[in-house]
Amino acid sequence: MSRSAVITLTTDFGAGSPYAAAMKGVILSIAPEAAIVDLTHSVPAQDVRRGAIVLDEFTPWFPAGALHVAVVDPGVGSARRILYAQFGQQHYIAPDNGLLSRLALRGPAIRMVSLEAPEFWLPRVSATFHGRDIMAPAAARLSLGLPAERLGPPTTDFVKLLWPEVVILPRSIEGSVESIDSFGNLVTDVTEQMLAEAPRDESVKIACDEHETLGIFRTYSDQPPATLMALIGSHGKLELAIVGDSAAAMLGIRAGTPVVISW
Amino acid sequence: MSRSAVITLTTDFGAGSPYAAAMKGVILSIAPEAAIVDLTHSVPAQDVRRGAIVLDEFTPWFPAGALHVAVVDPGVGSARRILYAQFGQQHYIAPDNGLLSRLALRGPAIRMVSLEAPEFWLPRVSATFHGRDIMAPAAARLSLGLPAERLGPPTTDFVKLLWPEVVILPRSIEGSVESIDSFGNLVTDVTEQMLAEAPRDESVKIACDEHETLGIFRTYSDQPPATLMALIGSHGKLELAIVGDSAAAMLGIRAGTPVVISW
Amino acid sequence: MSRSAVITLTTDFGAGSPYAAAMKGVILSIAPEAAIVDLTHSVPAQDVRRGAIVLDEFTPWFPAGALHVAVVDPGVGSARRILYAQFGQQHYIAPDNGLLSRLALRGPAIRMVSLEAPEFWLPRVSATFHGRDIMAPAAARLSLGLPAERLGPPTTDFVKLLWPEVVILPRSIEGSVESIDSFGNLVTDVTEQMLAEAPRDESVKIACDEHETLGIFRTYSDQPPATLMALIGSHGKLELAIVGDSAAAMLGIRAGTPVVISW
Repeated sequence: MSRSAVITLTTDFGAGSPYAAAMKGVILSIAPEAAIVDLTHSVPAQDVRRGAIVLDEFTPWFPAGALHVAVVDPGVGSARRILYAQFGQQHYIAPDNGLLSRLALRGPAIRMVSLEAPEFWLPRVSATFHGRDIMAPAAARLSLGLPAERLGPPTTDFVKLLWPEVVILPRSIEGSVESIDSFGNLVTDVTEQMLAEAPRDESVKIACDEHETLGIFRTYSDQPPATLMALIGSHGKLELAIVGDSAAAMLGIRAGTPVVISW
Repeated sequence: MSRSAVITLTTDFGAGSPYAAAMKGVILSIAPEAAIVDLTHSVPAQDVRRGAIVLDEFTPWFPAGALHVAVVDPGVGSARRILYAQFGQQHYIAPDNGLLSRLALRGPAIRMVSLEAPEFWLPRVSATFHGRDIMAPAAARLSLGLPAERLGPPTTDFVKLLWPEVVILPRSIEGSVESIDSFGNLVTDVTEQMLAEAPRDESVKIACDEHETLGIFRTYSDQPPATLMALIGSHGKLELAIVGDSAAAMLGIRAGTPVVISW
Repeated sequence: MSRSAVITLTTDFGAGSPYAAAMKGVILSIAPEAAIVDLTHSVPAQDVRRGAIVLDEFTPWFPAGALHVAVVDPGVGSARRILYAQFGQQHYIAPDNGLLSRLALRGPAIRMVSLEAPEFWLPRVSATFHGRDIMAPAAARLSLGLPAERLGPPTTDFVKLLWPEVVILPRSIEGSVESIDSFGNLVTDVTEQMLAEAPRDESVKIACDEHETLGIFRTYSDQPPATLMALIGSHGKLELAIVGDSAAAMLGIRAGTPVVISW
């Protein structure tokens, strides 16, 4: 990791919370030149599953060597471990509660370490804010060149959440709504690659809850306003959108709802 | 543009959205030393008019050479162009949907280019997130010294929104509420210069919807709490405020409501 | 203050407001290398008391030499002064309305100056946004090495808010809820040190409004979900929490509510 490595923060503290600033203060006290970027602080409170999806979708856009600190940590202060891990060219620090388990679907961690060496933590560690007292100082020291191995013993096992599997049949695919973006678009777990065999024209039907739409389009402006439509979104995944409006609000659909594509 | 040029981001992604972070990741991957500043991510969804006002009001406070990337882009993926433009000492990248047309009221663009050279985009461009795939990499390269002319052919025409004109009569001015700030103050399009002839004392009447107030004051503390008052706000424009409260919420007034100043 | 000194911003502008960006633009125009960190922009509008608590709780986590600019300023444009002050190794710029009076409970200011020298302000000062026109340029110049004494005359008096005093009796302590964090936890003004004599087991009773709980625990995971519990939070203060939920919302408790610990 180079000296100018970026450190990102992903938390459930809320967009206006000063708690993230406390982490930044700790990081800058140790690594004054760190470039800190807020990935998001709007993961729903204690929603580890959503945090895992955000890490998986957004951290690959950062430069090789970036270090991503994730604090969605309902078990803070309990026996749960804190992990450092490298996936691809990206580095992570997160509690061992499943936050890294979505990234791990892409392939095994290159390195993984359990943060157990207290000499790299703040001198006084609270029982309720390990993001500030353990993760931030460890991240700052990694960004200054500390080898990850110094943070604690290597490990290979970690908490894995169950992720729904997309079922691919000869003329249909069964997936689900994975997340809802800030425009209310329904982002599914069905990728462009999975849809390689599906036609793009109106012979393909996309059904979600009691709603249906025909065809997979290229972009929102391919359909008139107020229309329910399907397209491949910016994550390379099938999305359901209502043009110019919030599909989630209009249809009352939440993450987890099944989506069936058939042709 | 110098190497240390600031890059600001103005979007409708929402304050907590990770989408802005994807843009930052792309920028930092190309220009690791870029100083990225969030101007705001709270432009109401797809509200190009509001985005244009924000760019006009807030970007002039940045240093000469700053580059402002604006992503309020309901037509993403359609034939609409993406523009680079220089107004005064400030540089802009935005979809050609009117976002730059409020700035253009101040005077013509010094340079304008249509972003059509794909070698400066990400290798793979999604149809729904040109902010990340075209605008962010172009901004990063400009900040490293790429001449804007390399991004595509020069152009002079661009989409212009209709902006309501303020009517200036001998003893009255007819304008409108242009925006509402986070305190609920009603910011009008009537500038201090337009009001040069108007008295500041109680012989001037300001009317908005069914509400009226007398006098133009210097600051909020010139009137007691809960009073509707008029003053010249920090943008150099006439504002209507309720001291210690939200005028927008108390009076139910929205952007676009006519305001008449008479004396 | 070193050249790379951090400048933090604490305001009541709202998380999505572009007003903070105007301050950043002014700072970067004068001090292009400044490292600006948002402490929070979500202080409730004009809530000076809450702003004072945020400064006191979160600024100590920043490196020595950091400069904290606070704009919660209902009296902007009136005769109220603007102060520079140094407390410990941290530096502050804020209106003289009590914002610094919570920090001052820790001990006297090392230096305090009234910002009265207009040559360090913007050439044109609005009556309603001194954060941008006076505080931001002064902060930028301090970060470049300007001695604070140049900003105006020294002063020692400043506005002090009344802070409720915690009453410590032989077998009980009477404090109050000081603030509510973004998880809905109730943070009290009773510190770990004040509780040195209190047992941690179920012989200690914590009462707040009509609610009671027994024992002071180490962390949230020490009790089952949906349980009201007391613990020492990350600020070193007694907190009341409902495991996995918002205590403030569930119990309808606000800042200021008395809390009694007895054993």
